[in-house]
Amino acid sequence: MNYVLGYQCTLCQEEYQADLDLYTCPGCGSKGILDIVYDYKRIKKKVTARSLAANRNYSMWRYAPFMTVRDENLDRTLRVGWTPLYTANRLAGQLGLQTLYIKDDGLNPTGSLKDRASAIAVVKALEKGMEIIGCSSTGNAASSLAGNAARMGVKTVIFVPERAPAGKVAQLLIYGARVISVSGNYYQTFELSEQAIERFGWYNRNCAINPHLVEGKKTVALEIAEQLNWDVPDWVAVSVGDGCTIGGVYKGFYDLLQLGLIERIPRILGVQAEGCCPFYTAWAESQPLEPAEENTLADSIAVGVPRNPVKALNAVKLSNGAWITVTDQEILAAMKTLGSAEGVFGEPAGVTGLAGLKKALVKGMIEGRETAATIATGNGLKDIQNALKAADGPIRVQPDFRELEKILA
Amino acid sequence: MNYVLGYQCTLCQEEYQADLDLYTCPGCGSKGILDIVYDYKRIKKKVTARSLAANRNYSMWRYAPFMTVRDENLDRTLRVGWTPLYTANRLAGQLGLQTLYIKDDGLNPTGSLKDRASAIAVVKALEKGMEIIGCSSTGNAASSLAGNAARMGVKTVIFVPERAPAGKVAQLLIYGARVISVSGNYYQTFELSEQAIERFGWYNRNCAINPHLVEGKKTVALEIAEQLNWDVPDWVAVSVGDGCTIGGVYKGFYDLLQLGLIERIPRILGVQAEGCCPFYTAWAESQPLEPAEENTLADSIAVGVPRNPVKALNAVKLSNGAWITVTDQEILAAMKTLGSAEGVFGEPAGVTGLAGLKKALVKGMIEGRETAATIATGNGLKDIQNALKAADGPIRVQPDFRELEKILA
Repeated sequence: MNYVLGYQCTLCQEEYQADLDLYTCPGCGSKGILDIVYDYKRIKKKVTARSLAANRNYSMWRYAPFMTVRDENLDRTLRVGWTPLYTANRLAGQLGLQTLYIKDDGLNPTGSLKDRASAIAVVKALEKGMEIIGCSSTGNAASSLAGNAARMGVKTVIFVPERAPAGKVAQLLIYGARVISVSGNYYQTFELSEQAIERFGWYNRNCAINPHLVEGKKTVALEIAEQLNWDVPDWVAVSVGDGCTIGGVYKGFYDLLQLGLIERIPRILGVQAEGCCPFYTAWAESQPLEPAEENTLADSIAVGVPRNPVKALNAVKLSNGAWITVTDQEILAAMKTLGSAEGVFGEPAGVTGLAGLKKALVKGMIEGRETAATIATGNGLKDIQNALKAADGPIRVQPDFRELEKILA
Repeated sequence: MNYVLGYQCTLCQEEYQADLDLYTCPGCGSKGILDIVYDYKRIKKKVTARSLAANRNYSMWRYAPFMTVRDENLDRTLRVGWTPLYTANRLAGQLGLQTLYIKDDGLNPTGSLKDRASAIAVVKALEKGMEIIGCSSTGNAASSLAGNAARMGVKTVIFVPERAPAGKVAQLLIYGARVISVSGNYYQTFELSEQAIERFGWYNRNCAINPHLVEGKKTVALEIAEQLNWDVPDWVAVSVGDGCTIGGVYKGFYDLLQLGLIERIPRILGVQAEGCCPFYTAWAESQPLEPAEENTLADSIAVGVPRNPVKALNAVKLSNGAWITVTDQEILAAMKTLGSAEGVFGEPAGVTGLAGLKKALVKGMIEGRETAATIATGNGLKDIQNALKAADGPIRVQPDFRELEKILA
């Protein structure tokens, strides 16, 4: 908390003092998404490669100086972060890539990368003395908020579009959240949640609106860099819906570059589903972002009207990266590929980064001699119906060994 | 591997040399489950509280000297173990217990404690140069074997009873396992797998039969003790199906007592579902174990004919513990309780230990001034259907704020 200089609007670039209590830019309104600005010179004195190597807090809070939180509640939260980064030699070989790393963020406490943002939301709400947190979500933000809030004794009201998979909804009901299922798309769900949060005065966990949350998501990039001993890959592939995660990934690497812990920011590959790809379309056609269909089975990234466009577009632009789309069939194939080659079970949006990486290699956007990482953003157990689509069925037998022997022989 | 003295039969007590390649006791046959015997004097010289405190390997392999594995493959496996242990003050208050700890083993790579056994199975198969592993399972052993084997490039053939939940089956299909779904109960499934393993010469991951696997499961107890700085709780509550997990929990604490790292073994509460409780019945009626019905929604512990009876019965007897049963309704209630009070989402068998603890407190078997831990053995995402039964449904609304305002006001 001591290292925050203030806020800066991603639209008008206006700066605001850290002690103001802001969600979005007072000048630009709800589209004026704010970024947090740090005093890197002072962080540099406190945080070094050596100090991190000596730090035994193996959770996202090892990076607390890079965030806007006070220390007082951090030892009581769920254990978020420090998920495994696997060197995926078998899969790299299948793809024709020299080196591939898989960051399995589905092993976070509620099963997705969103825990990194939700943990911050709960801590910030507690700091402000607020007792209820509201949010809208395609699913994972909801369940992660519900779980992290339950752990800290904070109440939640959560808005989900009716298409959210049963697994994700069941999870947040078990966590004791008050759940509002909206007969509409994500845009309508988001709008309704904003009205309710405003009306009832809850803390707002909508990730695009709340500038603190991307600061939690960026810890996935901090971990990738530290787990690779600060030798970052050429590319990092990230699935993109609302734009907050890819924005966070860029911010994490940006922080490390400012601190001199890494020498360059990896090129970021933004991967969208073909059936919902507003960022890709804007980039490919050099046009402003337009609302898009939400027509993909990867529900976590089915966001037709992204709420965090500037951070997402900047992540690719400023890292000299690229955008790509993949079909639902390619996403399902990637579930099977990742699971069978490396033992990592990702949900559809969780393997979309990998599907994009594969396609970028085929298209020659990425070369085989390069190194790459991809983030499995959510656990495959969250969406069993699509896993069943991706897999062949079992062999069904009677309890009769002779019959079985014939089948297996 | 250097610290293993040999095997000892749990039935006839006969000892066998470590270099023999045994599953069960040559004298007693398939019921002669073997235990691994260690040279604690030599482990004591190598492993101390201080050496562990300095050990940066935060996975089950930090305890490799307590296992029967060689080192060569351990850095390539999935990251199994070192799951969080939460101090659950809110839940302790609700139960009227002084101190309660929750070990969330659902955060293992494939979502259950069984990863601790499967990781060993894969490492042992590799040591023996075997290319296929076979097993039968109610679900979690299967998916954990499939995931851990996929990571290491080993093939699997897995037998599941047809009642195994879709989530667990989907998971192992994604991991690329060859899955045999048997139209029968767990007993028939197990028998069929044993015949096939024998006939085709696969490595055997059936936990009761393979004495190395309990040595993996025991790491959950080693972690609980180390995470509590060697000050173990009065009670540890464990859900019980086949009997291997509770046997492993006892073995872990037994090891630590031999090494002088803890002063006593916690009393172990074995918790079974009322609809499938052969251990409870044998204990309560002081009778030999009899086959039982498999009539519970907690599929992971629906084992009517447990394969590891001696280790399970000894765990309770030698720790001065107790057995208890809980109804399916109590199990569903515990899912909601654990989720809403602490943000931990367990599958039915994963919260059965907690349900038993609650009942034991009500019955006066455990006193409120005592300390207890319970192990959430599996992730709730594995069994969404039962989670939906345990939870109240969402509030369904149209995207209309006026309507919503009335509901929330």
